[in-house]
Amino acid sequence: MKIGVCYYPEHWPKSRWPHDAQKMREIGISIVRIGEFAWQQLEPRDGELHFDWLHEAIETLHQQGLKTVLGTPTATPPKWLVDKHPDMLALDQYGRPRKFGSRRHYCFSSIAYIEECRRITELVAREFGRHPSLIAWQTDNEYGCHNTSLSYSTNAQLAFRRWCKNHYDSIDTLNQAWGNAFWSMSYQNFDEIDLPELTVTEANPSHQLAFWRFSSHQIKQFNKAQTEIIRKHSPGIPVSHNFMGNFVEFDHRLVAEDLDIATWDSYPLGFLDRDAQDAQAQQIWMRTGHPDTAAFHHDLYRGLCNGRWWVMEQQPGPVNWAPHNPSPLAGMARLWGLEAFAHGAETVSYFRWRQAPFAQEMMHTGLLLSNGDEDWAAKEVRQLHEDIQKLSAVLERDKLPEQTAGTVTAETAIVFDYSSDCAIRIQKPGGDSGLHASVGGRFDPLEWTQQAYSALRQLGLSIDIVGQDSDLSNYKLIVVACASIVTDTLASNLKRTEATVLILPRSGSRTKNGTLVDNLPPGPLGELIPLTIIRSESMPPAWQETLTTQDHAGNKLSCTSCDWREQVQTSLTPAGSFSDGWGFLYKHHKIYYLNAWLESESLLALVSSISLSAGLETVQCNAGLRLRRWKNLVFAINYGPEVVQLTELSGLPETDKKALKSDLIIGKSTLFPSDAAIWAV
Amino acid sequence: MKIGVCYYPEHWPKSRWPHDAQKMREIGISIVRIGEFAWQQLEPRDGELHFDWLHEAIETLHQQGLKTVLGTPTATPPKWLVDKHPDMLALDQYGRPRKFGSRRHYCFSSIAYIEECRRITELVAREFGRHPSLIAWQTDNEYGCHNTSLSYSTNAQLAFRRWCKNHYDSIDTLNQAWGNAFWSMSYQNFDEIDLPELTVTEANPSHQLAFWRFSSHQIKQFNKAQTEIIRKHSPGIPVSHNFMGNFVEFDHRLVAEDLDIATWDSYPLGFLDRDAQDAQAQQIWMRTGHPDTAAFHHDLYRGLCNGRWWVMEQQPGPVNWAPHNPSPLAGMARLWGLEAFAHGAETVSYFRWRQAPFAQEMMHTGLLLSNGDEDWAAKEVRQLHEDIQKLSAVLERDKLPEQTAGTVTAETAIVFDYSSDCAIRIQKPGGDSGLHASVGGRFDPLEWTQQAYSALRQLGLSIDIVGQDSDLSNYKLIVVACASIVTDTLASNLKRTEATVLILPRSGSRTKNGTLVDNLPPGPLGELIPLTIIRSESMPPAWQETLTTQDHAGNKLSCTSCDWREQVQTSLTPAGSFSDGWGFLYKHHKIYYLNAWLESESLLALVSSISLSAGLETVQCNAGLRLRRWKNLVFAINYGPEVVQLTELSGLPETDKKALKSDLIIGKSTLFPSDAAIWAV
Amino acid sequence: MKIGVCYYPEHWPKSRWPHDAQKMREIGISIVRIGEFAWQQLEPRDGELHFDWLHEAIETLHQQGLKTVLGTPTATPPKWLVDKHPDMLALDQYGRPRKFGSRRHYCFSSIAYIEECRRITELVAREFGRHPSLIAWQTDNEYGCHNTSLSYSTNAQLAFRRWCKNHYDSIDTLNQAWGNAFWSMSYQNFDEIDLPELTVTEANPSHQLAFWRFSSHQIKQFNKAQTEIIRKHSPGIPVSHNFMGNFVEFDHRLVAEDLDIATWDSYPLGFLDRDAQDAQAQQIWMRTGHPDTAAFHHDLYRGLCNGRWWVMEQQPGPVNWAPHNPSPLAGMARLWGLEAFAHGAETVSYFRWRQAPFAQEMMHTGLLLSNGDEDWAAKEVRQLHEDIQKLSAVLERDKLPEQTAGTVTAETAIVFDYSSDCAIRIQKPGGDSGLHASVGGRFDPLEWTQQAYSALRQLGLSIDIVGQDSDLSNYKLIVVACASIVTDTLASNLKRTEATVLILPRSGSRTKNGTLVDNLPPGPLGELIPLTIIRSESMPPAWQETLTTQDHAGNKLSCTSCDWREQVQTSLTPAGSFSDGWGFLYKHHKIYYLNAWLESESLLALVSSISLSAGLETVQCNAGLRLRRWKNLVFAINYGPEVVQLTELSGLPETDKKALKSDLIIGKSTLFPSDAAIWAV
Repeated sequence: MKIGVCYYPEHWPKSRWPHDAQKMREIGISIVRIGEFAWQQLEPRDGELHFDWLHEAIETLHQQGLKTVLGTPTATPPKWLVDKHPDMLALDQYGRPRKFGSRRHYCFSSIAYIEECRRITELVAREFGRHPSLIAWQTDNEYGCHNTSLSYSTNAQLAFRRWCKNHYDSIDTLNQAWGNAFWSMSYQNFDEIDLPELTVTEANPSHQLAFWRFSSHQIKQFNKAQTEIIRKHSPGIPVSHNFMGNFVEFDHRLVAEDLDIATWDSYPLGFLDRDAQDAQAQQIWMRTGHPDTAAFHHDLYRGLCNGRWWVMEQQPGPVNWAPHNPSPLAGMARLWGLEAFAHGAETVSYFRWRQAPFAQEMMHTGLLLSNGDEDWAAKEVRQLHEDIQKLSAVLERDKLPEQTAGTVTAETAIVFDYSSDCAIRIQKPGGDSGLHASVGGRFDPLEWTQQAYSALRQLGLSIDIVGQDSDLSNYKLIVVACASIVTDTLASNLKRTEATVLILPRSGSRTKNGTLVDNLPPGPLGELIPLTIIRSESMPPAWQETLTTQDHAGNKLSCTSCDWREQVQTSLTPAGSFSDGWGFLYKHHKIYYLNAWLESESLLALVSSISLSAGLETVQCNAGLRLRRWKNLVFAINYGPEVVQLTELSGLPETDKKALKSDLIIGKSTLFPSDAAIWAV
Repeated sequence: MKIGVCYYPEHWPKSRWPHDAQKMREIGISIVRIGEFAWQQLEPRDGELHFDWLHEAIETLHQQGLKTVLGTPTATPPKWLVDKHPDMLALDQYGRPRKFGSRRHYCFSSIAYIEECRRITELVAREFGRHPSLIAWQTDNEYGCHNTSLSYSTNAQLAFRRWCKNHYDSIDTLNQAWGNAFWSMSYQNFDEIDLPELTVTEANPSHQLAFWRFSSHQIKQFNKAQTEIIRKHSPGIPVSHNFMGNFVEFDHRLVAEDLDIATWDSYPLGFLDRDAQDAQAQQIWMRTGHPDTAAFHHDLYRGLCNGRWWVMEQQPGPVNWAPHNPSPLAGMARLWGLEAFAHGAETVSYFRWRQAPFAQEMMHTGLLLSNGDEDWAAKEVRQLHEDIQKLSAVLERDKLPEQTAGTVTAETAIVFDYSSDCAIRIQKPGGDSGLHASVGGRFDPLEWTQQAYSALRQLGLSIDIVGQDSDLSNYKLIVVACASIVTDTLASNLKRTEATVLILPRSGSRTKNGTLVDNLPPGPLGELIPLTIIRSESMPPAWQETLTTQDHAGNKLSCTSCDWREQVQTSLTPAGSFSDGWGFLYKHHKIYYLNAWLESESLLALVSSISLSAGLETVQCNAGLRLRRWKNLVFAINYGPEVVQLTELSGLPETDKKALKSDLIIGKSTLFPSDAAIWAV
Repeated sequence: MKIGVCYYPEHWPKSRWPHDAQKMREIGISIVRIGEFAWQQLEPRDGELHFDWLHEAIETLHQQGLKTVLGTPTATPPKWLVDKHPDMLALDQYGRPRKFGSRRHYCFSSIAYIEECRRITELVAREFGRHPSLIAWQTDNEYGCHNTSLSYSTNAQLAFRRWCKNHYDSIDTLNQAWGNAFWSMSYQNFDEIDLPELTVTEANPSHQLAFWRFSSHQIKQFNKAQTEIIRKHSPGIPVSHNFMGNFVEFDHRLVAEDLDIATWDSYPLGFLDRDAQDAQAQQIWMRTGHPDTAAFHHDLYRGLCNGRWWVMEQQPGPVNWAPHNPSPLAGMARLWGLEAFAHGAETVSYFRWRQAPFAQEMMHTGLLLSNGDEDWAAKEVRQLHEDIQKLSAVLERDKLPEQTAGTVTAETAIVFDYSSDCAIRIQKPGGDSGLHASVGGRFDPLEWTQQAYSALRQLGLSIDIVGQDSDLSNYKLIVVACASIVTDTLASNLKRTEATVLILPRSGSRTKNGTLVDNLPPGPLGELIPLTIIRSESMPPAWQETLTTQDHAGNKLSCTSCDWREQVQTSLTPAGSFSDGWGFLYKHHKIYYLNAWLESESLLALVSSISLSAGLETVQCNAGLRLRRWKNLVFAINYGPEVVQLTELSGLPETDKKALKSDLIIGKSTLFPSDAAIWAV
């Protein structure tokens, strides 16, 4: 458990650096990310290298005992490089170049740019790869940010054709796989294939899905090239990349295969204001962030690199980039850090050290004000530093390592697969679909998954988020939330499991190419529970129906609306039925199939009932309280406005009640808003 | 009265075809549309023809007694053809090519593409034109779908200049006609004329209107070329095209001049969700479609080819292309068919036979599920088949032909003119105007026309929709709904008529070139009723005024808001006046001028009063019931959620009441939701 | 005080001209603007000049004693000119040409077009410059209308590079000034600089601000070239340009430096419907316009040319260009004229003489209907003409000149700086930012300024709107509303003043290059009041907080929400505090700092209290009444629906009460809606 910070020495006079380094150490920081946007400063003209300043900066930090995470600077190619390779620019979906003047102005398929990235990465890795203070690398920065995963350049087009050639035996196979018999879309050879752009109406969804897969592949290759060079010149130093939140524009599991550590950039208030489509939620959580958004991503990214993960950028105060940027409540900068450690973060690194008084992010706060004085968050970091010292001491006392390899940390798992998300998003109802559809809102697979996650978490459960090929043998409850495309591995793991399984709508409905399964949904999951989906419908927002029924345990459920509803053909008796006779909720042994996406309150009631039937111990958290178990520690974090008496929580196990009295490490059993209590069990 | 289906044998293995054909016949289908997207299968490479499979498919159907409608495949040119003629693509209003990858990726002005279409049409027509099972042709598919009526290509630009040259004596005439003195927009010669695109602010509305007329002309020519070839090689077989709903992007009457049968594609739920801008209506009619939308188009398209018309595509279940796609109520697939036959449809053809498990429309249901089992609608088609057998039997009994040439079927007519719609739409208030403005909502001439239609239909009336040059001598009530441009024929027909005439706002306000009439609106209609419009205003949505007045028959009318209001100068006494003194509703002999667009309830009251004064027998239908008379049959269709006692309907003529007891062919006089009753009078 | 009209003789037959001229004189018009869109008529082919008709038109007017304002026709270059210089077109921010077919289709940086404009201006100025009826010139028409201030052409790019070279010593200076160290955005030389377009995410705000400044400079140079030519050939005749409302796309003060008279185009209903984002306000003021919008611009533009200003276009009835175009209340066309004269307008010129029956503006009303009969507004102009004769007589009686040079007319001033507006707008919260952000709504500096103006005006105050470098020595109250960038002059003037100063949020927060001030906001204004802003936040619309506090005078203030809030570090005691402890409203001697943007009611209460403390006499106007003092005249104008008893107005000075009895020139002390009363004091 370490605290880091993102630092840009190139923005400040050298004379300031020692002061900064000393202050970092003083408030409890031990890790500094550096260099990821500094190509221009490292190589102001083609081939003219200026590495001295970076040596000096790293050395200055080192003298204060600060470790360095060094970024490759490939997210911000300088102007001379763009002028040297004009075709390195990505093209947007309308064919327009995405020009120099901000960042990420490159195409993942540009051969010239890939070569330049190899060159600069090798130069930097060779120069700094064995520096004693180097603790990790970061490749590039936030792949895909600002919609840069997909490019419609000629380079991309040619590479896509090659990718298609590699993936399909023959053009006939491809035509068959995509259903190109439809609308005379068949190709005679691979060189006829264009990118799915500027089509008169939507392009074939299989074409789109293939392009998304291809783009994931290009990002993987781009990233892998850097990791290979780094590992050659910087042996033993782990390589990371900083992923983002609410982001599914490429297959993160695929890219993470070549990384040692998955990191992500956590901006709870920015995400809420930018992405949430529920105005009420936006008001309630305006100054804390939604209590489950950061946690969801912590669990998601923990699943990527065998359990090794960081928060590489942590919001410290108001950001600049959301439509509205309110100030977090006092205490949140610390609390967000604790939530991350509760999910096993190795490091939480705040972004940024000092507010820059210029350029795009000048309204983004940091730990220091733009004039160099301390801002609020610096104080909170001091407290967080004290907190983690206490926590480390307990782990040490109890002879538990801070981290251990592996991703299994809980009894509950949610299946989330990126390609399954994409297959559905491409034709998402509601009027915003296709590869450039926005995330969130009704009908969104990622949103649905987060709602299921949130329901489980409101029951005090700790959750792992797993992929299609993850080992499922250790869980009591598995929620198949986003798996429209079911792999053989998933199908066979689910068949073998003794866990309770909750299958959510649209699961198993698609083939690998995104077409409908031959035998009707839920396709391969039909082997788990004998039913088929013979019709589905997407509902307008105005639609309301009150369904009152009970789950299989006899608990009353009521639901006042749903987004998506499926008609089931089966010999099973449903738990209830809608007013028009469509059944609702099916069970077969320990397998549940939920054939409607419910509003959140109904979903919570249902998930609660199923969790109990799975033998899980659930705790009735109120709207703002959350629990998370890590090693022998239990974190209780209060995002809500109410004071919580932890010992009075309904369902809290006796061991916790006891530990709350005997082994409370941080906080009190009377838990105030924006505060945390942590005990050992 | 026949039932058809749209079938894509090219999507399925040949081994399945006999099964399909047999099943079609079994459920009552007798007509199959085929081939309209199969260019790639017919000619996979330039000049390499594969007609055998289509022969075999037609033959397989034929063996089951199924007749074929064959489509020319020109809506989906294959990739090799696009690569052969890259400039065949349309350009959108921003100058971007509309590329291969879906359908309709061609420009109606592409000389190369027109030639290719002639070639394939000739090949197909020659090959299949005399096949004994051929019952009709369909040219292309849904002209204009996905905003493809207008293209901004170089081909279009050159053709537009030629069109202008043909339409105006000289460039001075054109300048005068368009008012190009304004803003120095005059041209010196025809070669200076650009398309109305990318102008700094809106282009001259006369320029836009001319471009719309030109585009209609190009579609007409494109279509005519196919009809001529078909008639040469397939003598005696009628030629049709399938038009769309809520669609005014070209002049349908002009294109229909070259067709034998007008057909259209009816998707009641899709239209409601995509086009309706009234959230309440969207909720009420979510599962039935609006009760007047399909009927309006039935009457509109019946007016195009001397009364011959079909539904070529009928929604069977949820579609894929609206923002939300709920399931229709059980019974609606049959009911929509009955409504079409009530308006004289020769054939109602369901789209599609079997849900495709791939490509853009994989979420579009059919009569069969994607796995080949029957879906709901198949059952309803069986019932519809029984229904029409009963109806045919009655017509035969009463010695009435099922169809007769001619468009007059009612005592009430609504005038709807496409160019008049365009002239107003170009400068539609509300913030969405120009040639690419969306249809529907406030200020929309098509929407206004549909509201007037709906009011008449709620009075139990049957309605003809007529054009500017239609014969008006048979009507008791003529509603001039959309005729901003009044032709000499219309003016003189209206002067001669003895019918009651209701003139709606903006009628007669424009010249043929879309400029304001010299003598103030209502221009030539001022000869019918002595008044002029000296001011008009478009109201913000928030505006509300309660006007309480009475019509000329003394009935109280109240109106709580209106969209558009005109100030009238006249010696006539208005029926009432607004709070600021502007008059409301003028009458002169049997001519009414309504100078405000009212909300629907007020419009209904007003139209009711005027219908009575016109000597029409009106029936007070409730919100969901509709009546339609065809030959000696009366169809009562219940779209609403309430049970209707038909014999108790206020205003129902005695003959109907009697027939309900004595000659009820289908259903009962107690009419349940989503059901129909049909009797003979 | 003169009445004018905009006239287009080129739209009408010559035979009509004498009738028009006679009618103009008859209803009280004495000035006619002419010619500004007539390039095509003046020069139908390159070099072929047709000036006779314009001579004849001017002469026809002259014979009726009408003076002429002649426009240079450069806003509407003819088609032949565009074809001669295809690269004269502007490019939009997506790189698309802005084509011929409406108006303003040129780029301010096109060298070829600038040369053509010089040529035609010289020809016209030489031809008409000494005509005896010529009273003023107008350059071009509405610079920037339809988003034409900014162009992204190659010409613009090259000119921008030159501008940068002139403005920054070296490329290093520029890099430093813009903060280009961020994201490797530094340039190596000026030729690397692109326009801020098509960047992957927002371009550097300093880059954007520089481009805005450059564009202002290009417009200034364009305009200056014309003024120099005109002055050479038309000595003594003042040169004007007609600016627009709610328009900040270039620095108007900069352009006005080369003009003798600032004029603007006032469309109160159009602005309300197009720009206001408050639906309730849009409903209340639908038929009058907002009572402060025109007044604000009158005061703004009066400040530009040493007090000389006109309304060049005054709305007469419904316009065509807003989303909704209702009719004004009877009397408003006159009332808007009186409001202009109350602020010192030399001339109020109605747009247009006669409604054109063709082209883009055919739905725009005029003083005459399109058929040539009088429309409402003609009658109101007659009355206005009587009014101003009475007012002139009183001024003459009291030996006061109608106009005097200078801009100071009031005791209250508001500081509004265009570049300060731009610096904030570029990163405006709320989701709509950048150089092409729309004006109005929350977070908009112009809107905030107008709200402050409105609050003062509801207190019966007369207001001057001043720039950064204006003389401030004559005011009792100075409101620093829009001055994020504070010049040395402003800072020193504010330090010297003895006036009460109210500093509004974000003032003094930016350097000239748009970066944050080094010493935290309010930067140089920190010398006036000892505080610094250490955090600021932009609030989502849903946020609500009730703050109840009192101002420094002890008046209770309550505020239920705010858009923008700042946290202040200071030793001063705030007047109140928010629930989370942030202070509210600071005072130091006579300097107030308001650290939150309040909703309008709270702002009014606060401004009222501060105005009193500044020694101003305030009057409690109701929502619709407004007062304005000009010379010895007091104008009371009633925009609201209530009758106002002027003598009973709370706070009305005794001198006014007395004058209302003894020297009421126009109207009565019982003031009806849409009417005015004017008295002399």
